[in-house]
Amino acid sequence: MTQLEYAKKDQISNQMVIVSEDERVDVQVLKEDIKSGTVVIPANINHKSLHPKGIGKGLTTKVNVNLGTSKDREDFDLELRKLDISIKYGADAVMDLSTGDNLNSIRKIIIDKSTIPVGTVPIYQAAVKSVKDYGFIGKMSRALLFEVIEEQCEEGVDFITVHCGVNQSSVERLKNQKRLTNVVSRGGSFLVEWMIYNNKENPLYEYYDDLLKIVKKNDVTLSLGDGMRPGCLADATDRSQIHELITLGELTKRAWESGVQVMIEGPGHVPIDQIEMNIKLEKSLCNGAPFYVLGPLVTDIAPGYDHITSAIGGAIAAWHGADFLCYVTPAEHLRLPDENDVKEGLIASKIAAHSGDIGKRIKGAKDKDNMMANFRRDFDWENQINISLDPHKAREYRDSISLNDKEVCSMCGEYCAVKKVKKFFSE
Amino acid sequence: MTQLEYAKKDQISNQMVIVSEDERVDVQVLKEDIKSGTVVIPANINHKSLHPKGIGKGLTTKVNVNLGTSKDREDFDLELRKLDISIKYGADAVMDLSTGDNLNSIRKIIIDKSTIPVGTVPIYQAAVKSVKDYGFIGKMSRALLFEVIEEQCEEGVDFITVHCGVNQSSVERLKNQKRLTNVVSRGGSFLVEWMIYNNKENPLYEYYDDLLKIVKKNDVTLSLGDGMRPGCLADATDRSQIHELITLGELTKRAWESGVQVMIEGPGHVPIDQIEMNIKLEKSLCNGAPFYVLGPLVTDIAPGYDHITSAIGGAIAAWHGADFLCYVTPAEHLRLPDENDVKEGLIASKIAAHSGDIGKRIKGAKDKDNMMANFRRDFDWENQINISLDPHKAREYRDSISLNDKEVCSMCGEYCAVKKVKKFFSE
Repeated sequence: MTQLEYAKKDQISNQMVIVSEDERVDVQVLKEDIKSGTVVIPANINHKSLHPKGIGKGLTTKVNVNLGTSKDREDFDLELRKLDISIKYGADAVMDLSTGDNLNSIRKIIIDKSTIPVGTVPIYQAAVKSVKDYGFIGKMSRALLFEVIEEQCEEGVDFITVHCGVNQSSVERLKNQKRLTNVVSRGGSFLVEWMIYNNKENPLYEYYDDLLKIVKKNDVTLSLGDGMRPGCLADATDRSQIHELITLGELTKRAWESGVQVMIEGPGHVPIDQIEMNIKLEKSLCNGAPFYVLGPLVTDIAPGYDHITSAIGGAIAAWHGADFLCYVTPAEHLRLPDENDVKEGLIASKIAAHSGDIGKRIKGAKDKDNMMANFRRDFDWENQINISLDPHKAREYRDSISLNDKEVCSMCGEYCAVKKVKKFFSE
Repeated sequence: MTQLEYAKKDQISNQMVIVSEDERVDVQVLKEDIKSGTVVIPANINHKSLHPKGIGKGLTTKVNVNLGTSKDREDFDLELRKLDISIKYGADAVMDLSTGDNLNSIRKIIIDKSTIPVGTVPIYQAAVKSVKDYGFIGKMSRALLFEVIEEQCEEGVDFITVHCGVNQSSVERLKNQKRLTNVVSRGGSFLVEWMIYNNKENPLYEYYDDLLKIVKKNDVTLSLGDGMRPGCLADATDRSQIHELITLGELTKRAWESGVQVMIEGPGHVPIDQIEMNIKLEKSLCNGAPFYVLGPLVTDIAPGYDHITSAIGGAIAAWHGADFLCYVTPAEHLRLPDENDVKEGLIASKIAAHSGDIGKRIKGAKDKDNMMANFRRDFDWENQINISLDPHKAREYRDSISLNDKEVCSMCGEYCAVKKVKKFFSE
């Protein structure tokens, strides 16, 4: 049974118990939210090492890290070190987006080693195989695509991105829209190419019921991909994007009816004043299904700093109800990220999620902030460092300059304001 | 005459002409906004190397970089290299916050070399001198404080931070408030200490008219400091902060009546859902005077990444009407920043300002974003790099991995979405 089916039968699963304890929410409330589809627990029955996480209404905002090889850089050990960093610094999920060779091997190791949910985009593997065998994605058979999906579900993948909303109708709107950057979703572009070459409907849309049957067996959560997501500010919130979102809302309802858990993927590149509206629109069109956003990036002019442009958008998105943030690293738009990029991107995304949780008033969200304030007032540097998001970096900065007075820092030295007034306010 | 006096007499100054050209706004509109106090041009008549900048309503959001020595690190060359970095990467102003020895020397060099407005906090120098001479800031005489201010104004400082709102009434409220971190403003803490020791009113408040006379001679813009700014989320938007803001509003009106230009300084540490309110409150209580915010930081738990916590808050602040952002570096709360910290902090703040400008619909704010989108669609990497906020870093990332196909990047390689669909959308 899927988590959704348990909830529909008013049964409490082990996963629900763990999530309710981690999140300090009542397990009955959690079960009701899973039943209504506003919370998911992506937990493949074959992912044995998993510590399950809940994503959605009333829970802390989660953060995903993308890993994976590409043809230009295929280094298993590097990707596994990225996985270690992700878990160490508090990622809530990882996606294996590999497109190099030996896709099965790396995915199996990641699932085996990962204590957090693992996601994939199965069409990548189908596309890589088609290109290898026929030189071209257009030759991908529907059978191949569904076989790959089934294989990944059997292996223990907890959630899969499937671009089911990229259909003839949304592609038509895309053509009419005259975008600046057209399609920037890799999976979306594979399907657009396939659909145009074959002059057929997207099999993930046309045979959606078959897809539901496959994923349900192992309780794989669908992450309905946004193939039409904007790739620049100018393309944000346009007709092709929102038309696809309407379709995803319809597909959400069908998934729920079949007992399949669903998240919705969202933009992308969005001007700061359109973020709240995008979140509210998703909640409305998709009946409150958890929203998994990529960024959103609030400007296009900062390559090398897109972890920051995304942290701005992600914080605002989380505050207004986004449930799950896909990290973006400083390497975005420039190269495949290295280990340091992964860490910087993850911390930026954790900051966004946490700031958003304070804004959406998640219970206890400010506790650590208040502890930090107390440690600062008391010059308790050891605890300031220990509860910070990245103790290693905080310590490195702190220790880089020798100090006469160990209570203060080199910014103000003896003129430390906190120290100056402490005597007047301590009773 | 000050810029405000020119405007009151309906005269157009050279500085107004330059600002109107740089900002592509009508010079008559600009003059009216200066007249109403909603725009300032901090331009000391003795700052010969200055290219003036406008700050306020209808203009792009500006960014300030803090420089300066401390007793624990006194290295003139380092601070001058920070100045070069600031100007190179687009800072709109620098503040010399030195508290080491030889304050006059470093300040004179900075003013001489800086083509952008220079700000200071004169009480730092008065405090350093008092501590040197008497071991204690409480012994600072009013005469010393005003002499230092006058000296700095004569030297060519364009704007000075003066914590005139730290008065007996706001200190009383601070005591009653029971904050977690009390006072975190350096200048604020000097004054609190002085006031409690001497049992007297803050001279910057009590003799505010004398201050106005001094600054007016050289058209030095007042930046009314927020000594009561919150030092943690828990202390944000409390009675002591807002009481001080009310006082600053009253002082703004008196400055305007005297022909003196004014900005208001603001928080600090503010939860994401209180930022818009803080901006609107300042605009209301201070009759639309330009708002100069420090951050705001949206969480306290990320030392080492406070350029990011500030970029989130700064972007939202700018969007809702903040006019001037004080950068925060990754070193904040840990140490005096080094050159790399300065650059990282500045770029983060530029991202915030720019994203905010898009949100507040500054004319042409999206132009560069749209250019970037076109360059990305066309695989024009050279221009993508050249128009990015930090071309050096973008190029470094781009060049770090060798590529088979020079059109794409190593993230997706041959599976580049933009490349895949280009053929279908190029007519």
